[in-house]
Amino acid sequence: MSLLIKNGRIITAVDDYRADILVEEETISAIGKNLSVQADTVVDATGKLVFPGGIDPHVHLDMPFMGTFSSDTHETGTRAALFGGTTTVIDFVLQKQGRSLHEALAEWNARAQGTAVGDYSFHMAVTDFNENTKAEIQQMVEEEGITSFKTFMAYKGALMIDDRQMIGLMQEVKKQGGLVTVHATNGDVIDYLIAKHRSEGKLSPLYHYLSQPEVTEAEASCRFADMADYTGCPGYIVHMTCEGALNGVRNATRRNQRVFVETCIQYLVLDASLYERDFEGAKWVMSPPLREKKDQEALWAGINQGLVQVVATDHCPFMWEQKLMGKDDFSKIPNGHPAIENRMELLFSEGVHKGNITLNKYVEVACTNPAKIFGMFPRKGTLAVGSDADIVIFDPDEKHTLSAQTHHMNVDYSAYEGWALTGKVKTVLLRGTVAIDNNECLIDKGYGQFIRRKKVSGKI
Amino acid sequence: MSLLIKNGRIITAVDDYRADILVEEETISAIGKNLSVQADTVVDATGKLVFPGGIDPHVHLDMPFMGTFSSDTHETGTRAALFGGTTTVIDFVLQKQGRSLHEALAEWNARAQGTAVGDYSFHMAVTDFNENTKAEIQQMVEEEGITSFKTFMAYKGALMIDDRQMIGLMQEVKKQGGLVTVHATNGDVIDYLIAKHRSEGKLSPLYHYLSQPEVTEAEASCRFADMADYTGCPGYIVHMTCEGALNGVRNATRRNQRVFVETCIQYLVLDASLYERDFEGAKWVMSPPLREKKDQEALWAGINQGLVQVVATDHCPFMWEQKLMGKDDFSKIPNGHPAIENRMELLFSEGVHKGNITLNKYVEVACTNPAKIFGMFPRKGTLAVGSDADIVIFDPDEKHTLSAQTHHMNVDYSAYEGWALTGKVKTVLLRGTVAIDNNECLIDKGYGQFIRRKKVSGKI
Amino acid sequence: MSLLIKNGRIITAVDDYRADILVEEETISAIGKNLSVQADTVVDATGKLVFPGGIDPHVHLDMPFMGTFSSDTHETGTRAALFGGTTTVIDFVLQKQGRSLHEALAEWNARAQGTAVGDYSFHMAVTDFNENTKAEIQQMVEEEGITSFKTFMAYKGALMIDDRQMIGLMQEVKKQGGLVTVHATNGDVIDYLIAKHRSEGKLSPLYHYLSQPEVTEAEASCRFADMADYTGCPGYIVHMTCEGALNGVRNATRRNQRVFVETCIQYLVLDASLYERDFEGAKWVMSPPLREKKDQEALWAGINQGLVQVVATDHCPFMWEQKLMGKDDFSKIPNGHPAIENRMELLFSEGVHKGNITLNKYVEVACTNPAKIFGMFPRKGTLAVGSDADIVIFDPDEKHTLSAQTHHMNVDYSAYEGWALTGKVKTVLLRGTVAIDNNECLIDKGYGQFIRRKKVSGKI
Amino acid sequence: MSLLIKNGRIITAVDDYRADILVEEETISAIGKNLSVQADTVVDATGKLVFPGGIDPHVHLDMPFMGTFSSDTHETGTRAALFGGTTTVIDFVLQKQGRSLHEALAEWNARAQGTAVGDYSFHMAVTDFNENTKAEIQQMVEEEGITSFKTFMAYKGALMIDDRQMIGLMQEVKKQGGLVTVHATNGDVIDYLIAKHRSEGKLSPLYHYLSQPEVTEAEASCRFADMADYTGCPGYIVHMTCEGALNGVRNATRRNQRVFVETCIQYLVLDASLYERDFEGAKWVMSPPLREKKDQEALWAGINQGLVQVVATDHCPFMWEQKLMGKDDFSKIPNGHPAIENRMELLFSEGVHKGNITLNKYVEVACTNPAKIFGMFPRKGTLAVGSDADIVIFDPDEKHTLSAQTHHMNVDYSAYEGWALTGKVKTVLLRGTVAIDNNECLIDKGYGQFIRRKKVSGKI
Ligand SMILES: [Zn+2]
Ligand SMILES: [Zn+2]
Ligand SMILES: [Zn+2]
Ligand SMILES: [Zn+2]
Ligand SMILES: [Zn+2]
Ligand SMILES: [Zn+2]
Ligand SMILES: [Zn+2]
Ligand SMILES: [Zn+2]
Repeated sequence: MSLLIKNGRIITAVDDYRADILVEEETISAIGKNLSVQADTVVDATGKLVFPGGIDPHVHLDMPFMGTFSSDTHETGTRAALFGGTTTVIDFVLQKQGRSLHEALAEWNARAQGTAVGDYSFHMAVTDFNENTKAEIQQMVEEEGITSFKTFMAYKGALMIDDRQMIGLMQEVKKQGGLVTVHATNGDVIDYLIAKHRSEGKLSPLYHYLSQPEVTEAEASCRFADMADYTGCPGYIVHMTCEGALNGVRNATRRNQRVFVETCIQYLVLDASLYERDFEGAKWVMSPPLREKKDQEALWAGINQGLVQVVATDHCPFMWEQKLMGKDDFSKIPNGHPAIENRMELLFSEGVHKGNITLNKYVEVACTNPAKIFGMFPRKGTLAVGSDADIVIFDPDEKHTLSAQTHHMNVDYSAYEGWALTGKVKTVLLRGTVAIDNNECLIDKGYGQFIRRKKVSGKI
Repeated sequence: MSLLIKNGRIITAVDDYRADILVEEETISAIGKNLSVQADTVVDATGKLVFPGGIDPHVHLDMPFMGTFSSDTHETGTRAALFGGTTTVIDFVLQKQGRSLHEALAEWNARAQGTAVGDYSFHMAVTDFNENTKAEIQQMVEEEGITSFKTFMAYKGALMIDDRQMIGLMQEVKKQGGLVTVHATNGDVIDYLIAKHRSEGKLSPLYHYLSQPEVTEAEASCRFADMADYTGCPGYIVHMTCEGALNGVRNATRRNQRVFVETCIQYLVLDASLYERDFEGAKWVMSPPLREKKDQEALWAGINQGLVQVVATDHCPFMWEQKLMGKDDFSKIPNGHPAIENRMELLFSEGVHKGNITLNKYVEVACTNPAKIFGMFPRKGTLAVGSDADIVIFDPDEKHTLSAQTHHMNVDYSAYEGWALTGKVKTVLLRGTVAIDNNECLIDKGYGQFIRRKKVSGKI
Repeated sequence: MSLLIKNGRIITAVDDYRADILVEEETISAIGKNLSVQADTVVDATGKLVFPGGIDPHVHLDMPFMGTFSSDTHETGTRAALFGGTTTVIDFVLQKQGRSLHEALAEWNARAQGTAVGDYSFHMAVTDFNENTKAEIQQMVEEEGITSFKTFMAYKGALMIDDRQMIGLMQEVKKQGGLVTVHATNGDVIDYLIAKHRSEGKLSPLYHYLSQPEVTEAEASCRFADMADYTGCPGYIVHMTCEGALNGVRNATRRNQRVFVETCIQYLVLDASLYERDFEGAKWVMSPPLREKKDQEALWAGINQGLVQVVATDHCPFMWEQKLMGKDDFSKIPNGHPAIENRMELLFSEGVHKGNITLNKYVEVACTNPAKIFGMFPRKGTLAVGSDADIVIFDPDEKHTLSAQTHHMNVDYSAYEGWALTGKVKTVLLRGTVAIDNNECLIDKGYGQFIRRKKVSGKI
Repeated sequence: MSLLIKNGRIITAVDDYRADILVEEETISAIGKNLSVQADTVVDATGKLVFPGGIDPHVHLDMPFMGTFSSDTHETGTRAALFGGTTTVIDFVLQKQGRSLHEALAEWNARAQGTAVGDYSFHMAVTDFNENTKAEIQQMVEEEGITSFKTFMAYKGALMIDDRQMIGLMQEVKKQGGLVTVHATNGDVIDYLIAKHRSEGKLSPLYHYLSQPEVTEAEASCRFADMADYTGCPGYIVHMTCEGALNGVRNATRRNQRVFVETCIQYLVLDASLYERDFEGAKWVMSPPLREKKDQEALWAGINQGLVQVVATDHCPFMWEQKLMGKDDFSKIPNGHPAIENRMELLFSEGVHKGNITLNKYVEVACTNPAKIFGMFPRKGTLAVGSDADIVIFDPDEKHTLSAQTHHMNVDYSAYEGWALTGKVKTVLLRGTVAIDNNECLIDKGYGQFIRRKKVSGKI
């Protein structure tokens, strides 16, 4: 089976040229000027951009949380991702405190296998690091192809590990060739502020925001960087939102350290003024919360400085009815917002189209760096001979509007309702097969594969 | 005319895969698995790395300096570069104070045209910015394809411009779509220390080093960054040597600024202990001088942090006899050392082989970033369809020893005499033609072309 | 009752002049040139320095710790302090987790009242902050004259509070006009390292040092500063030892914050090379441990920069037999060293005599700032009309040697055995009474009073 | 001759107590509770503050500048200073480029001797450092009692020295026991901006402000600190106005450096919005210009952090007619504003009364630190036995209004017209003589003495 993409403008994290791409079976077999080959299918990409399938390394599908489940399953979530040009996602397996990593993995496998439409992998969230867990780290890396270990510095009693566990985990993960990622906010301080606001009867979504001030994230990010520096373990901070936290990473460069940083699309394009909309603000109740304009500027700059390597989503959608669980108490609003389908188009429109980043940088942060940092490269994340033919054909000029009416995520509101964008996903290939075309999904539930990942070094 | 490179491991700034490369005429026309084409020439690259020709954006060929000329002409210099895997160099045209840019350009053109073996371009060194010069900036950018403007914060009375001129230049260069580069050391302080040491009878090469302490470079680098930030002009610091200067750039990230940074191979691998060898130290008399081990560590880290984008040479060789001009007075030693031929192999051996940087990072800093930052991309600096077929075939395992006996630079000593390296350039293509093979240069003087460059944005 | 000190060179934190001091009853009533008054006692201070009695705001007397008690009682400790020119100390009351502040205060009162020879006050160590404790804060401030609240970021399960409690405490203490002080080290990380070293059979005192690396103190100091900044509560970091922690405070100046910093005499004059002496190193097992030469330099500089305000001791002596509890396991060595008697003379000799600080700075950090920061000023900490006549007459030229043979602390070794000092305490007055003269203590157990302290503002 | 001040609240940089002060001849001879002495004069200070005479270390009297002279002579200026509680000022002698320091000193002596009402000293502004000047430095220090050397990093061709001269000067001044002070702005950049604005027809006072952006001061302050650090010379930055420059000094603390910082009262209480008042803005045309609210906050914080040691005025008044010289061109407006009389009352009202600083800090920055830093201590700057009886009796509660109608400076407008203040100077003694009382000056022209100053160490 072969497929030929003719005459597109090919964009990778570094290159930008016009050529044809030949796909045979699941991978790219040749790239050339006017390739004179016969292919089973020919796609004309004249006037279009052709770039690697997006990788969203931070999504929560079908996740048990706050007494409910995030509303996208591995089926609906990965399908929506494909519509938006994202061909691979990394979901989070959550260890239960007192239980094993394997048990959690089994649970997540049960939900994802045979269900996913697009490709997926798992981070392992270590919520209880002890001698038993320690022994499982090697097994995860060597046997399961899971090389990234998520930690929480917040959510005490549920997900949080303390710094003693963090250091222990880092030393073991480093030894095994993995990476520690972190939700870096000072959970103790946040818990205090939540309790304080609740006791004062301050219960609207605005107080969700006010319970997680910038300092809680800046502090924890610095602390995490300190521990990563001490142990020498590769570290990665998820969903960074603010200048204070970024400055922590900037300061750490002075000791010759590099910590990887992920921000999410919403922190680049939305701000905290949305929390002033009474309970509608619940749509954007997520942790950390949206921040200020100055933080958006810092994050765009961080991307261009090479200090922010990844733009993800932290996709964690909840139906409006689920959000209403917190109608009378912000602390009961399920945290998260839907974005898995919107990331690539939003980042193109707000980033590339508006001149904040180059096309190469766009591919770097949305496709390539996630693959490199998390050990899926060069199979995923680039357009090169031998790589999986995960390919997006994109019209950089087409204008369209985001809406819950038209999106494919299983959630009844859009966090970006009415946003007018420039640039639209037209065709998406996943491992050589046309997955999306003409606004239709052409592949089935179960097509998505689990992607085993390699060891990583912390250098990319 | 066509040429097929079979089965190499292709490395770009981002990719790493095995494939064949088809070259037609001067450019790459296809890359694929087992390309089934007939080519006039076939090169077997099995077991070899295949990466883009190196670009050395900082060389001084046939340059009038301190009453003499640097000993490599555009012929010998670019030929030696090719032997070492560098296919394009950027040389510096030096305006004479009181004279025009065009006059200087004509002089340099006269020396380089018809002489160069490898490709070359020019930076324009603006040593006298005034209303006349200002008018020439646009002409250089629009008509001559020269988009980078070099400045000196040292060498008062010869090359230095003051900060008033710097600001004026930056505002004009920004307007015209160019980039300002800088030799960032505080010349006034250095002049004071040179005079002081001389008056005290401290005349050995060691005092060259002691006349340019780290603070002189740190200060000027910060000042340059301040002015670039104020004007919004893209800025690039050449030959950064030390932690102090790098920390200036790191601190500037806090105001969302990015300043490009170039270091040179010698600052990564040599240190100031060489100045303790009496007059032999003259071999490494260059400005800025070699620094300390802690500075090497900072620079390697800077590369991995994405804060140092380029590794160049500041190649400026002088015969030993020329160096002897300063036998009795360090301030009369012609400044500079030979490295144009050694950069790629040294950086591979000390960088990649020893685990300091990845293969992709190697190509990024030695080939791709210079092309991107200076407006030669994608023609130069990558291996992609449509790009110039400037290609290095490299044996990553071959061991060899550097020596003046075997090098091709026109200088009678080696700054790296006896260094045992791992990894050797085997074959080099320049615009589709085999330039180097079997330790022979197969192309003639005059093959090298002047490369016109495009406007730049300061984002890569 | 009156006493006249004739012709001394009077030194305060700001002044330096020659005059007579007239003491009537417990306070200073006049200072003048050749005061023509009749006094019951006349002391000739010609050629001597006359400065305020030292205040050591960090001592642990008769403290239950690690299954034993620190070996100086309020009697022996305050008497030794007087011999060394320290007239007032602040000891720490330790709340027991699960019990009240008042209960702890009662226990400490029982040990100190009627026992102390010199004056003393108490910090209240809050080890369990909850609604009950919160209510006691105001009572401590308003009724007990205890306005400083000590916290521990280490010693989990015994003394440590988490950040949630810290924020709560800070908000309450700020409201009541107090100050939060902190033992700022990351206890979790330290616990990990202790356990790791023990499990690896690394049991000598050296591993005490290696279990508390600089980062554990730097991290916690930054975190404390972050929380103090967020709450607006005056903050004070006790026993700072290292450049990393000081840099945290220096960085915090950028957000217009001031955090008070105390170092201790040992961190200025001793370094970690002492831990290489096998079990003898146990003499200096304290937390944080001794550091490096570069840290000493940073601390001296911090004093001169006005960023380190206090030099204390963390006096917490144990008999050699007690230290032997940890003969086979560093983690069982009682933490602390004896210095209460040596601080003023060591700081004079190593600080003033060697030119590291001025005489005024000496008085400022050893006498005046502790009084100001902790609300005992102007009663204590200066030589001014109306202040308590706590006065040291000091020979700046007398040479002597420190030794356990001659010291008055209840401990059978000296941490400074054989140190040759310049400058010696000759006569000490406490509230108008000659307490020390001719190397004899002239006042009795019980003379020492509890000093109630005032509210503080965080500005001095 | 004796004078007794009864029952005041005595404030020094460190103390705060109630007592009587006995003055005999020119100095303080005793301080005590209810001093039972007979004095020729008795002043009742009940309910009043009694603090040291203010020292303004930055004034320009009768100074030739921009083709005119500042409008206060040594007579009118020092008299106005006395009315405002400032008993000593330090004026600037300006070397003419190409001429000697002695020549300039002679010229200033001629204007000041026999003229001054209050005490005064001179800084020597070195505008042309060469071998001749170098030889004069020692003479100034040893023979003339002038130990501070002012430099300008701006005003090229008139006052500016380059960095080569700066380093040379610093090394010589350090050797001789002096201090280098600096007007730290990047004159080259400012010259560029002035020329640019003028060429664009932007000629109003607002463009004076826009020609000296924060970066010009931040850059030069950092550069000065770098050079002071390299040479080890004590350094002092005059009239600091902004956060950027202060952050330079804050960052320098990391290398264990201390640079002294002076701000001026106007930068604490006025801001750049005044430049929006069309030509009236000329009243506040000074260099550096007024800044923003965030800069005021940074400077107040800097004072409390101990990083800003002095509050001066840069008093340099011009009559409105003189200001009109620049009616059509901001660059012709004589730079400077009148404040010598207002400093102490403004700083009390805005600083102490509003709670920004403590009373002790007030005396420290307005009286004591200038004396200490510049070698006049303990003769000047404190209230201690043996010090000059320069004493201010101050009513902290009296309200009054500043106005050109009532001030004593020789200038026909007030920069603070209509400002309502709390706290008023009532009586001022200069060397034991009542100089000001009941709003009258009781001493004559010529009473003021030149104060020879001592060598300094850079430590206070
Ligand atoms: Zn999270
Ligand atoms: Zn998440
Ligand atoms: Zn250079
Ligand atoms: Zn060069
Ligand atoms: Zn402690
Ligand atoms: Zn303690
Ligand atoms: Zn000035
Ligand atoms: Zn001035």
